[in-house]
This record gives sequence, C-alpha cells and structure tokens, in this order.
Amino acid sequence: MKFTPFLLVALLLSGCTPADEPVIDPELSIIPPDVAANAVALRERALDDNLSVDIVESVTTEVGARRMGTEGDRKVIAWSEAKFAELGFDRVWTEPVELDRGWERGEAHAEVLEPFAHDIVLTALGYSIGTDGDLVGEIVEFPTYDDLLAVPEGDTLAGKIAFVSYSMPDYVNPVDGSKRGAYGEGTRARGKGRVEAARRGAEALIIRSVGTSHNRFGHTGSGYNYEDGVRRIPAAAVSAPDAMLIQNILRRGKPVIFKMNLTSRFTGPQMSANIIGEITGREDPDRFVVLGAHVDSWDEGTGALDDGAGIGSMMAAAAFIGQMEQRPRRSVRVILFSGEEIGFYGVNAYIEKHRYNIDAHLLGAEVDTGGGRANTLSSRVGGSALEVVREMHTLVEPLGIEFNEANNVHAQSDMSVLSRAGMPALHLRQNPNGYFMYHHTPNDTFDKIIPEDMRYLTAAYATLFYVAAELDVDFREPALSAEILSQ
Amino acid sequence: MKFTPFLLVALLLSGCTPADEPVIDPELSIIPPDVAANAVALRERALDDNLSVDIVESVTTEVGARRMGTEGDRKVIAWSEAKFAELGFDRVWTEPVELDRGWERGEAHAEVLEPFAHDIVLTALGYSIGTDGDLVGEIVEFPTYDDLLAVPEGDTLAGKIAFVSYSMPDYVNPVDGSKRGAYGEGTRARGKGRVEAARRGAEALIIRSVGTSHNRFGHTGSGYNYEDGVRRIPAAAVSAPDAMLIQNILRRGKPVIFKMNLTSRFTGPQMSANIIGEITGREDPDRFVVLGAHVDSWDEGTGALDDGAGIGSMMAAAAFIGQMEQRPRRSVRVILFSGEEIGFYGVNAYIEKHRYNIDAHLLGAEVDTGGGRANTLSSRVGGSALEVVREMHTLVEPLGIEFNEANNVHAQSDMSVLSRAGMPALHLRQNPNGYFMYHHTPNDTFDKIIPEDMRYLTAAYATLFYVAAELDVDFREPALSAEILSQ
Repeated sequence: MKFTPFLLVALLLSGCTPADEPVIDPELSIIPPDVAANAVALRERALDDNLSVDIVESVTTEVGARRMGTEGDRKVIAWSEAKFAELGFDRVWTEPVELDRGWERGEAHAEVLEPFAHDIVLTALGYSIGTDGDLVGEIVEFPTYDDLLAVPEGDTLAGKIAFVSYSMPDYVNPVDGSKRGAYGEGTRARGKGRVEAARRGAEALIIRSVGTSHNRFGHTGSGYNYEDGVRRIPAAAVSAPDAMLIQNILRRGKPVIFKMNLTSRFTGPQMSANIIGEITGREDPDRFVVLGAHVDSWDEGTGALDDGAGIGSMMAAAAFIGQMEQRPRRSVRVILFSGEEIGFYGVNAYIEKHRYNIDAHLLGAEVDTGGGRANTLSSRVGGSALEVVREMHTLVEPLGIEFNEANNVHAQSDMSVLSRAGMPALHLRQNPNGYFMYHHTPNDTFDKIIPEDMRYLTAAYATLFYVAAELDVDFREPALSAEILSQ
Repeated sequence: MKFTPFLLVALLLSGCTPADEPVIDPELSIIPPDVAANAVALRERALDDNLSVDIVESVTTEVGARRMGTEGDRKVIAWSEAKFAELGFDRVWTEPVELDRGWERGEAHAEVLEPFAHDIVLTALGYSIGTDGDLVGEIVEFPTYDDLLAVPEGDTLAGKIAFVSYSMPDYVNPVDGSKRGAYGEGTRARGKGRVEAARRGAEALIIRSVGTSHNRFGHTGSGYNYEDGVRRIPAAAVSAPDAMLIQNILRRGKPVIFKMNLTSRFTGPQMSANIIGEITGREDPDRFVVLGAHVDSWDEGTGALDDGAGIGSMMAAAAFIGQMEQRPRRSVRVILFSGEEIGFYGVNAYIEKHRYNIDAHLLGAEVDTGGGRANTLSSRVGGSALEVVREMHTLVEPLGIEFNEANNVHAQSDMSVLSRAGMPALHLRQNPNGYFMYHHTPNDTFDKIIPEDMRYLTAAYATLFYVAAELDVDFREPALSAEILSQ
C-alpha cells in the first residue's frame, strides 16, 4: 500500500492489528465501530485502486463526445449499461428523457476583415442559429454584460455585431467552490446575451469565451435560449487570445469589420435516457443514497473533466461499496443524468417521474467540477443529522478534507435540483485542477485527469456514502423537511 | 524607477551619485569606465521601457501570421520598414529573397472511423501535399522515429498510415538551452518522416505533435522535404491529446481505421525579403554588430513567441542604443530574416550576397526561443576576445545572467549560419516560458508574452551590443579565424 499515513489512521481506528476487533473511536458516538472500521478499510482500498480513472479512460476512448441528442449520446447510454453490469451493480436500468429539439453544431469560421486581416477562432454557443452564409458587421465592444443591457432597446446596434469582452477572473468561489461568482457572471451573456443583443438591433452576438483559459479555444455552452417574439441572431464565443486581439485592434480606433459563418441548425425531437445502476441494500433496499453525475458532455472535446470525472468517481465509489463483504443496509444508486449541459433535461424528467418518492432519496451528491481532490465537505441536511455528517467527516478528514459547518450547501448540478426538491445533500468542494481552463472546449480530454487526485476524490465519496447507506439515519430530521416546506 | 537592486549596482558602478564622474570598476580592465557607465544607464533605462513588448503587440495585431510567401509575409516587410523608420533607425533597406515554391495550407480534417468514432485535431506539416479527397487507412504505431526506420524499405506499410507517437520530454537542453536534444529528436519525423514512411510503402505519415503541450493543437513545421524518386505522401501532426487517444484506442487491440483530408497544395515561386535597420556608427560605420530575428512565422497563430519576441527584443535593443546621446563607434544592424521556418531562406540569401564581407560582421546574436529572461551568456569568439566578453558579462550579471566559459556556442537559428561562416557570436540562453508548449501552433499569440521578462531580455541585448559596438575590439582574434579555417 502506498498511503502509509492513512494506513496508520486506519490501524489506529480499527485497533492494533487488522485482525483485532475494531475499537470504538472516542469521537464517534453515532457511527458504530464496525461501520467505521469498514469505512476506513474501504477508503484505503479505494485510494489504491485506479478504477475511477479507468472509467474516464473508457468513456472518453470508447464514446468520446456525447452531447444530448447526438450519436455519442446513444452510444454512452449503451456504454453506461454495459459498464454498470461489468462493475457488478445489482440492477441497471434506463429511464427515457425527451429532448424537444436537437441541434447540429456544423462549422464555425470567422475573420477580422478590417483594418487588419486575421483568422479568428470561435465556436458556436449551444443552440445558436446559423448565419445563413457570411455575416459581416462592425464590432461594438461591451466590457460587461451589463454594459450591453445599458443600451436602450431598439435599433441602436442595427448592422452591428455586439461583442461582450468580459474576462472571467481566475477565481473559484471560496464558499461553494465553483459555478457561482465569476463563472456565473461569465455565463450570463452566454445564455441570454443573444436575446438582449437582438432586442437592441444587433445582427449577431460574440462573447469572449467563458473560463480562465488563455489557450486558443472557443468555450461553448447554453441550451435553447431564444425567446418568442425576439428576432433570433447567431451567438458565438471567440477564444480568449482572439478576444484580446480584437481588443488590441479596436484600440487603434478604426472600425473593426468582422465576418462570421456558422452552419449550425436545429433538428427535430430526440430521445435520450438517464441511466441508473444500483447496489441493492440488504435490509431496506427501497430507500437509497444517490451518487450523481451527468452523462452528456459538450461536443468538441471528449468530456473527460465535464463530466467524465463525475461518471468515473461516482461509478467507482459505488462499485467499491458493492465489492465489500456484504451489501449496505440501504441501497446505493448511481444516476447518470442526461442533458445537464443544455438545460437539466435528465434531472427534470427524473423528478417528474419520481416526484412522489423523493423521500426515498436519503442523501445525494454530484461531481461536476472535474477530477480534483476534495478539500471541503459541506452539507444541507436536517439539524440533528448534521451531527452524523460531522462524524462521517472524521472518516474522510485524513484525505485532507475540512468540514464546513454552515449546512447550507445544496449538492451540485442535477443533484442541486433534487436537493432543492427536498433531498438531503452532501457536497465535496474540489480543487479545480484547471477545470475552468478546459471544460466546454475541445481541450477537455483525458490527459487532463490527474489519476491520484481522482483516487482521493473517489475514496471520499465511497467512504461517506457507504456510511450513509449503512446507518439507519434520516438525514432530513428534524429541521430540513420543515424548512423546505416553509420555503 | 522600479528596479532598485539594479539602480544600486548602477550607482556603485558609476560612482556615488549620477552626477559624479564614473569611477573605474576594479574588475573592468578593457571596458573604459565611461562605456561601462553608459552601458549600465542603458540597461536600467531598457528595464523600464516596454518598447519590445509594444513591438510584439504591433506585429501580432497589425500583421499576425506571416509565413514566407503569403500575404502576411508581404505585409510584414512593409510593417518592418515602417517600424524601423518610426524607431529612428538611420538606414532601413530590404534585400530580396526568393522562395522557389509556395505552399497553401488549406484545411485539415481527420477522424478515427473504427473501432470508435472520434474527430481528431491535426494540422498539415509544412509543405505536405494534400490528400486529394479522403485518405483512409489503418494506423500502424511507431513509438520513435527509429522504430519506423527499422522497418525494411519496400511495401511493408502498403495501405497503412504510419504514426510516430514519440512524445518530446518536457526538457530543455541545459547546455544549449533549446533546439537540440528532445526537440531535435521530435523534429526528425516532422522533416524526413514523410520520405522514410513512403520508402516503406505507407500512404501517409502522422506524428504526435512536437512540443511539450498537452493542449489540443497540432504543431506544424518543416519546409519542402520530399525527395526526388520517392513517392510523395501527405504528412500531418495530431495534437498530443489526440495522439494519446489514438494510443488508448490502439491498446484495445483492434484495427484503428483513420480518415484524413488535407487540401494543402503547392504554388509557384514567390519573392520575399530580409529587412535591415541600421544605427549608423559614428566612427567606423561599415563595420557592425548584428542583432537577428526571423520575420516569418508559422501560419496558424500570430507568431508572438516565434519569432515576434525576437523581432521585438532586437528592434527595441537597437532602438535604445540609437536613443543614446551619441551613436556608438561602429554600426548596429538589426536583420529580420525571411523564411527561417521553412529552411533558412533569408540567411542563405544574406550570406550569398554578403559572403565577401563576413568580416564586417563583428559580433552577432539572435533571439528565437520566445520572450523569456536570459539566464546564461555564452559565446563563440576568438580566444583573446573571451576576456572582453567576460567583462561585458559583468554588466548584465545583475539581470540574473550567468556566464558559460565554454566559448563553443554558435548563435541561434539564422545567426548560427553566420556564426558557422565565421562571424563571432554571443548567445543568451533564455527561460523557456512555455515556448515549446505554444510555438508552431494556433496558440502562439500575444497573451503568452510576459512583459517584464521581455524587458529583461531586451535590456541584456542592448547592454551587450552597445558595448560591442563602442569598443574597438576584434572578436575574432586571435583564435577563432584559425579555428574556423581548420574546420
């Protein structure tokens, strides 16, 4: 074994030698000693097993890009079913998810024509219309999305291409770790910018790519964001270096004439699916903890970080629990959600189907910020359950994970939707490992995964959710249900 | 002034206050005190001036990509002449350089078709023929170029696409700093790989991109490398992540079927030019020190590092010398060479034209590894001149530059050709600052320049070459000429 500090903790927790009866850790009053010992053994075993990484390698190699409604989506559904079976899950099934409208990316080309000719790297934002041939216009820069909104509606931007040049700070929100703050500001123009630019007369919208990368890739994103009654205009993201180049040209004070050509187009409705694998509980199988990730990715990379890392860590964590001597008391489900990227299609269909059974979802979490190590455990559980989570934390603390007592953090992405619908949630904030440099770009590929970090992440989830499935604890009680009902 | 440690050294070197008469530094026996004081003042002034960076911004913004023989090449010749004039050079002229054969890059697309469908990012290597429609073949991997060479010539690879997957170590040769060792090994397949693969029957050659980047860009390179009597086959570089993906697929043991489509093609001869700017010496104007860079770039980025950084640092260093109270004794020339990337066209034409006047080139250097700070001064001068270089070094030592006594380092790139033809040479080894991650890819853009490092680099060259132009020293004497004659 490589991880001697953890082994040492394991030995301290479980007694002098592995063969001894485990002793009760003095700090643990809720988690029984045998459960704690099992959890520590599971953690150590997970740290030594590359399964999570192998799963990411498998999905990126054997499937690759898998945007909802594409051929890759159909492939990843089959891949997921086969992989769950191969990993020894007791039950595997799919639940249909309908996509009202498909989208083909097509090709994207752009050039600055005047005053200096340059090829420009850009990518269509999700669900942009095409340009129907070359679209040529003068660029008008808006340093922030609010600067665009400050233009009165009407025809001020007629004939122009609105350019929101907002540069996302290289910053991760220290409270929730990722998708708010800087990234949230960056994504405003990515979503509704096409509508607001059209309301002001613009012929097209371009934005500086969201994210912190200065590599020359466009960062895509967004589902269907047009609004009825507002002219639909094309929307695209230029790479950060190209955005800086355009700004350098604009600084010369001459009109900057831009040509763009997108061949994106809409297609008809498509069927997709959520894929669910279950390690069936030995005593109370119809109640379950849930580990989530989204099965879809953007379409220019192979989706290794977003969200291959979630697929790999969550599948592996549950598989490790399934490989223990006996099944935990309650079930462990892994839900691979369809269509997160283009608008939470999977989780919305899931909630619609299971809306009368949310209470069976004992505790949930999702990984959707890449494969970095966890550094902080947060929760949103009933007040009395917080003490349980605190004890669970002591079992993952040796992985370098702190505890955030605030108890106000919904889980991530899809699972945040379930959490807001009443499911108790855990969340592990992760080191970014360059997530915001790579995701949503062609550069989101397997080489960006750091295997050791994935093992740490997976070990943490396996440990936490084994304990949650094994204990007979209601993570809602007593405060959470009342609090949610009062919202 | 921001650079107080250097100011302090300046004051120590030049006396207690700037108004005092400079005192002779006890270590300096050849460089007169006034020259040393001027050099130190020049160095400090250069550290505080962003001109070198502004020049890179200008050439990347106003010209951009400028491969020899393209429209960008014609633009950069005009840009260079205008910039030299703007910077106050006394004489500016061009010298024609003929390109025997032009090349259009066209477009490059590729896919893995079987056993898993993937889009692959690749780029045509320089002067590759096109594929004349889709070229489909099975991939055969060779971990190194020597592994390809080990295949007997003939038809062993008939119908196959040879894939040299050599991964360049993230390593900079500690002796000469850059373009040998790992990079040299990487570029073997890039150059003659197309010929050697064809000799073994292959339909095409693909290589893992040279360089240390794991970003998803193809790294181009090479001029015309086909040989008469050997079938010409297309040659392209896949990005590092795509190379790793192909290896992951190959590992599954099934035939990997690859489709590639390059629309590259040759065109006719083109005219280009070297552009030369001179700060004319006040006493001995027909002898000169020479600062070199290459004016051409590859065609997918804007050539900020390769070789915008050379253009910026060398133009600025000479401009700073030109802004001193009086011209140095001998002239300072900046030569911007055409067509370095595709085969030293510019320097070869230069040597052809000036072959009877090499002795007038007193000392030369070139910057062609980006804008990183210099860390080591090396030379190749006559034995007695080494003592002068050693004294010159003391004037740039405060910039963090060590001295390599070996006296066996030819200058870089174009200037190495002149150095081998008998010109004494200096060379500053630089910190790489990611040079081998970016150059020859679309990612070689202005944002990769670190302004402070460029100022340090420029200050070093300005200081060294001011002294060299001011002194009445023959850097050939006594040993170098004899040594060269004996080669």
